[in-house]
Amino acid sequence: MAEHELDFVNENDMSMLTDLYELTMCASYFDHRRKEPATFDLFIRRMPPNRAYFVFAGLEQALMFLEKIKFTKEHINYLRKHGFKENFLDYLVKFKFTGEVWAVPEGTIVFPNEPLMRVTAPIIEAQIAESFLLNTVNVQTTIASKASRVVNVAKGKSIVEFGLRRTHGTDAGMKAARCSYIAGCTGTSNVLAGIKYGIPVFGTMAHSFILFFSREIESFRAFAKSFPKTSTFLIDTFDDIKGAKKAAVVAKELEKKGFRLNSVRLDSGDLVEISKKVRTLLDEKGLSYVKIFASGDLDEYRVEELLQKGARIDAFGVGTRMSTSADRPYVDVIYKLSEKMDKNGRFVPAMKLSEGKITFPGRKQVFRAVDGSGKFVKDIVGLHNEKVEGEPLLVRVMEKGEIVYELPTLEKIRETALENLSKLPDEYKRLENAPSYPVEHSPRLKKMVSELTRDLRKVERLD
Amino acid sequence: MAEHELDFVNENDMSMLTDLYELTMCASYFDHRRKEPATFDLFIRRMPPNRAYFVFAGLEQALMFLEKIKFTKEHINYLRKHGFKENFLDYLVKFKFTGEVWAVPEGTIVFPNEPLMRVTAPIIEAQIAESFLLNTVNVQTTIASKASRVVNVAKGKSIVEFGLRRTHGTDAGMKAARCSYIAGCTGTSNVLAGIKYGIPVFGTMAHSFILFFSREIESFRAFAKSFPKTSTFLIDTFDDIKGAKKAAVVAKELEKKGFRLNSVRLDSGDLVEISKKVRTLLDEKGLSYVKIFASGDLDEYRVEELLQKGARIDAFGVGTRMSTSADRPYVDVIYKLSEKMDKNGRFVPAMKLSEGKITFPGRKQVFRAVDGSGKFVKDIVGLHNEKVEGEPLLVRVMEKGEIVYELPTLEKIRETALENLSKLPDEYKRLENAPSYPVEHSPRLKKMVSELTRDLRKVERLD
Repeated sequence: MAEHELDFVNENDMSMLTDLYELTMCASYFDHRRKEPATFDLFIRRMPPNRAYFVFAGLEQALMFLEKIKFTKEHINYLRKHGFKENFLDYLVKFKFTGEVWAVPEGTIVFPNEPLMRVTAPIIEAQIAESFLLNTVNVQTTIASKASRVVNVAKGKSIVEFGLRRTHGTDAGMKAARCSYIAGCTGTSNVLAGIKYGIPVFGTMAHSFILFFSREIESFRAFAKSFPKTSTFLIDTFDDIKGAKKAAVVAKELEKKGFRLNSVRLDSGDLVEISKKVRTLLDEKGLSYVKIFASGDLDEYRVEELLQKGARIDAFGVGTRMSTSADRPYVDVIYKLSEKMDKNGRFVPAMKLSEGKITFPGRKQVFRAVDGSGKFVKDIVGLHNEKVEGEPLLVRVMEKGEIVYELPTLEKIRETALENLSKLPDEYKRLENAPSYPVEHSPRLKKMVSELTRDLRKVERLD
Repeated sequence: MAEHELDFVNENDMSMLTDLYELTMCASYFDHRRKEPATFDLFIRRMPPNRAYFVFAGLEQALMFLEKIKFTKEHINYLRKHGFKENFLDYLVKFKFTGEVWAVPEGTIVFPNEPLMRVTAPIIEAQIAESFLLNTVNVQTTIASKASRVVNVAKGKSIVEFGLRRTHGTDAGMKAARCSYIAGCTGTSNVLAGIKYGIPVFGTMAHSFILFFSREIESFRAFAKSFPKTSTFLIDTFDDIKGAKKAAVVAKELEKKGFRLNSVRLDSGDLVEISKKVRTLLDEKGLSYVKIFASGDLDEYRVEELLQKGARIDAFGVGTRMSTSADRPYVDVIYKLSEKMDKNGRFVPAMKLSEGKITFPGRKQVFRAVDGSGKFVKDIVGLHNEKVEGEPLLVRVMEKGEIVYELPTLEKIRETALENLSKLPDEYKRLENAPSYPVEHSPRLKKMVSELTRDLRKVERLD
């Protein structure tokens, strides 16, 4: 045990970033020589309040995990000390995921109770994947779905993701940048996301920069000297309007040197009134090219309100509330057994009947029906080989433990998300009181549910 | 740029897990040869709804970051392409944090507007630390504070952190385990947190385990055979009461072999009624030693309600809502310049006046006044060397860029938190409508604020 370390999770340790019960269950399967395959569905149980659709994200990391998962000597030693038996530990040393995975491509708009990933693998391998798959799909789908709402209400105005300082740790900082970009944000403030994902990176200045100089205008002059082509001045440190006047002075000084001030940033106060006054002030000085950038406790509700009230804002920096999905920082994503093998080697459906937490059995596919113009009409969850109207959403992404799917670039995933969104009827994009998108069950799935419920009640003597 | 990777943030890249503006500001400071020291305060601006105190956490990672921060060739190349100048990049290659840091020990109970960390360093070094420090203190303090509420209402009953699958990524999964343990949880389901932090790890079984067998009772028998001394059976897959009866049958089989069933787990339905019925059923079978463990969408409100209604539950698995701090997934933690150096090399106070976002100037200390029995009475924020009643909370933790503080073990941090909590008067532990803990300002701080406000209004011509 390393008592004090900076960053704890690296690729080699991902296998142990898991709930203990995955390993105890697997150890018991191993004890009983249960190696036959099973199918699990990863899906979201219900729609959170004030959401009407999800933007699916996290597949890439899920697949990389399955391809790379392994157990190191340190892991084995830990598990040995915690009572796991040698023959199971020997199995883990050689562990490799060999299963088949079907999934919805990242950026696809999805709804509750639709399988988003479907894993078929020997039971131990399928079970061991659970915690990580849920973790990465949860955070990424949560943030992509939230960010999509912010992008929608901005109606083409640029949204830059500013949330790094309030995301839940380092990985979340990266995933917030990735997923808000997928959802249509223009970029991020997170430099590492620029390096690792190629996302455009933006930055302005903090209040400390202004305070560090003896006068506000000196700080603007200093910054303009360093970044004459790309400066944004933060003007609310003392007084927005007086700050704007000073910004205008320095903008005029820049003009004389052949440069143009990029923008001014507002970060507090009544952004509607202040932005109007600042716009007028800048325009009167012949600075209509200087854009107004706003930040400060923004989210989709605030952005919509600002624009409806006629705020003269060209772009928004949106942080904490979007990057933590503050009004609902999770989706109810679960991973449930839907199919197992009987003693004759035939796949048979499985489901649970827990109160309020029923699951859907069988190897399933999601079919999306569209109208003549390509707009989404409804989805039907059916059985994998069933003939159902609409286009199937799940594609084969992994076979025998290898990725058999060209992982799309982030740009491509973003295109998928924006294209999907353009096909989603507008009523589902309302911030509040949006209708429920229809997700139906196919005739064969319904029949399977009723037959299996009846059988289970008999076998488990529930009546 | 690596297009597809599993885990993106490793120790070497931490310097770039930052907002671009930190680097642009630093580049401009460098351009203007501004190297004099400055002081920044890290503090939380306000108390979130339904919180009355914070459990401070994240210092260890903040200090490790400051000690290890560096810029690699890959970072430099990226910054070069993005227009940073060579002489600044040369500076970054040799960058080392050389400053002094004072901080409140982890586990300390703290309140809004109190400096929790105070960084004094050459301006570039102090500025560059901002994003990471905020990130790690935010997530850790948020989760420790939330978990403390859950632990409080459980009144000594065990709380196990179960949130890995819904935490915001991998790092958050680790920090949720760390911080809920600090706050008094008994352990976590996260195996890697067991390996890396030495936190006790717990696990039961999932519904999939029950479903995978041909009958529920067979799954219990199989698990009991693998883990005869430590089994917990999940009994709600089909019907809690019938599940409990089957668990009792297998518990009796275990008894014959000389073992005792540890517990049964409830995960759905009316936990008050079901737990009472299951308790009676187990007691009637002579299984009063079998504990009842409950999980499923729990948080402090649910746990309090269950116990108030007389639920017969011995321990709780609390996940998503605690591990994401779902009702408020962030604290308003900020990092603000409070002191700079004038042209004569003297430190002078700095503050901003932004509407609703004023900051407090000067090099400060937090003093905690207690009553005769050691209970917390009030805090006073004063100047560093001011004589103020109460014990100072900020201690020197880093000097010349080196940690000069014995980083406490996690057990010690947990003790600090629990001891602090025992000294916090009960009214602040109410889940709702708790009073505001008094945080006052010292006479000298108040005088400094009013004088500086007056001076700034003059210098910046705000009147």
